[in-house]
Amino acid sequence: MTLTPRDTPGGNPSPLTRCLDARDVAALVRAIGVRQSLVQLADHLREDFLRWSAFDKSARAASHSDVGVIELMPVSDGVLHAFKYVNGHPRNARYALPTVMAYGALADVRTGHPLLLADLTLATALRTAATSALAAKAMARRDAKSMALIGNGAQAEFQALAFHALLGIREIRAFDIDRRATDRLARNLAHVPDLRIVAAASIADAVAGADIVSTVTADKTRATILAPEMIAPGMHLNAVGGDCPGKTELHADILRNARIVVEYAPQTRIEGEIQQLPPDAPVTELWEVLAGTSPGRETREEVTIFDSVGFALEDFSALRWLHNVALSNDAGEFFALVATPRDPRDLYGWMMREDASAAKTEGGGVKVALT
Amino acid sequence: MTLTPRDTPGGNPSPLTRCLDARDVAALVRAIGVRQSLVQLADHLREDFLRWSAFDKSARAASHSDVGVIELMPVSDGVLHAFKYVNGHPRNARYALPTVMAYGALADVRTGHPLLLADLTLATALRTAATSALAAKAMARRDAKSMALIGNGAQAEFQALAFHALLGIREIRAFDIDRRATDRLARNLAHVPDLRIVAAASIADAVAGADIVSTVTADKTRATILAPEMIAPGMHLNAVGGDCPGKTELHADILRNARIVVEYAPQTRIEGEIQQLPPDAPVTELWEVLAGTSPGRETREEVTIFDSVGFALEDFSALRWLHNVALSNDAGEFFALVATPRDPRDLYGWMMREDASAAKTEGGGVKVALT
Repeated sequence: MTLTPRDTPGGNPSPLTRCLDARDVAALVRAIGVRQSLVQLADHLREDFLRWSAFDKSARAASHSDVGVIELMPVSDGVLHAFKYVNGHPRNARYALPTVMAYGALADVRTGHPLLLADLTLATALRTAATSALAAKAMARRDAKSMALIGNGAQAEFQALAFHALLGIREIRAFDIDRRATDRLARNLAHVPDLRIVAAASIADAVAGADIVSTVTADKTRATILAPEMIAPGMHLNAVGGDCPGKTELHADILRNARIVVEYAPQTRIEGEIQQLPPDAPVTELWEVLAGTSPGRETREEVTIFDSVGFALEDFSALRWLHNVALSNDAGEFFALVATPRDPRDLYGWMMREDASAAKTEGGGVKVALT
Repeated sequence: MTLTPRDTPGGNPSPLTRCLDARDVAALVRAIGVRQSLVQLADHLREDFLRWSAFDKSARAASHSDVGVIELMPVSDGVLHAFKYVNGHPRNARYALPTVMAYGALADVRTGHPLLLADLTLATALRTAATSALAAKAMARRDAKSMALIGNGAQAEFQALAFHALLGIREIRAFDIDRRATDRLARNLAHVPDLRIVAAASIADAVAGADIVSTVTADKTRATILAPEMIAPGMHLNAVGGDCPGKTELHADILRNARIVVEYAPQTRIEGEIQQLPPDAPVTELWEVLAGTSPGRETREEVTIFDSVGFALEDFSALRWLHNVALSNDAGEFFALVATPRDPRDLYGWMMREDASAAKTEGGGVKVALT
């Protein structure tokens, strides 16, 4: 749509809402560059994690059915209100739809007016990878150069590029039970300078000699992707795939002998790898590590684990980043997501006046077919 | 935007989402006609109230600030999932924005895919009025011909037209503390055949002789819009304005001597007129009256009250109606609210391929400016 915001004398906010659909987000990321997007996003995440106490960390509203779940995840810092809509439907392939789809909105807390509506499917992949890399930068050994990447699904390229961009990882030792997934990963990243994708023959082969191990598998059960004997001193484990009750990737003994960092302990104790530990097992929250009040690593030998489940604050950061880059790139389109009559008491008059829709047709390219 | 849904062999759902912005909704209502829209919406509401037990009646997630509130209200019937975003910011006039703005979305519970995104500011006004009329049809005396309408703000025209369309009300006795509001109401409805708007000199003047009394005031306090001495035997009171804790319109003695019907008792006891009564005061839920298991009225003399606060099921009905009329009128526009790559595991490839955004530019009229 080609509306432009109404003139707003006195600096009033625009009554229109910016929309970035999935294609807009893809075009933005291509224009900025994926690695630069990940770096910018990591900066936004760091800023927000460092303002931890400013956030209203609400519970998510989940609606379960036999075939999946639909969640609304709201979060606010008192200036911006964000929410994310996200589904999880494991059997969506039968409908040629992804298992997980997401979108969200950002509103001005002063007025409640929606500023931005955006696809978050792509931004969720980006923010998950940027959060992983942000944690690893504070937890992995500084000379880490190689990463095992177990599970080469939709998140794999994003993880590889985030660790390449933020930590200088040069070798990805990739493994997936479906070799075609690893081939796709290698093909998609073949052009990236200074990054080598090596297909491993097994999980053990991928992990052997790696400085960092990322697990991003989709198994819905208590799987043992990593066993204790695979783990070498000094490794950093980035456990991303275990993210809901009953879904874990690491053997519990690995957890018992490592320093564990989580996003938000009350949520991770339910959803993360640490659901396998007693409810009072010691963990550190990522914001404490980023703020420097807790160490991410104390010795070269210790094993560190980032037990990532995804947290609403990260979606807030993703929406804030999208909004900032949309503003600076003049991206997306404006539309009247909500009715904002000039005289709010004359909603009926606004609805009935022919000119209520005049602005649309001026711009062209927009149709409303009515019988 | 001028995308058309992807061809979906095998009857797969479209991966695009229909969007009805506020101008689209206004155009739809004008094309259908306001009174016909109210009648259709009342039918949808009745159908949904009669399926009461099918609904997952979740709590709303509210985010409060010093200047207002932002709420997310989800509801599902196991087939469709709906949510409404709505704000309440009493001081929004300073920003030339309405106090209340709303939008919402409807998703397919089978897949979690969003089917419809729509402005709900207009539809909320319509569904509130249609619900009032639906209740009154089951509660007011059958020969009711006149209605007092106290409070002539944004909801007034919708209430007047709903009672005209569904109950055959011919005379509206209107009063507002701001005479300009009443004048606007009269002007906006001057063209409606068989409906006379009479400006009353006071609340008492408006109510005297009316068969039905609707209170739709915006006062944020425990106001006494209606006092016991104004109420005549047989009146039906449609109390719409008292809809949050600390905000009521009726003197408690009126409540003590009337049959009271509410939408959802647990919510109305907190938000409605009956917050003035003991928590176990007898009330009937509207769905019971519509189902015929409880009477809306037993005698010509009794006073009946519909204590309306607005309920998530009504927004579900509004979205369902909007979706149905958008389908039959081919209204709105399709866009990629969420990313749906053909190969969900190749999200990165989808994002990077130049053709990810090709479909947009084909249609014209859509720009993504990138630096």
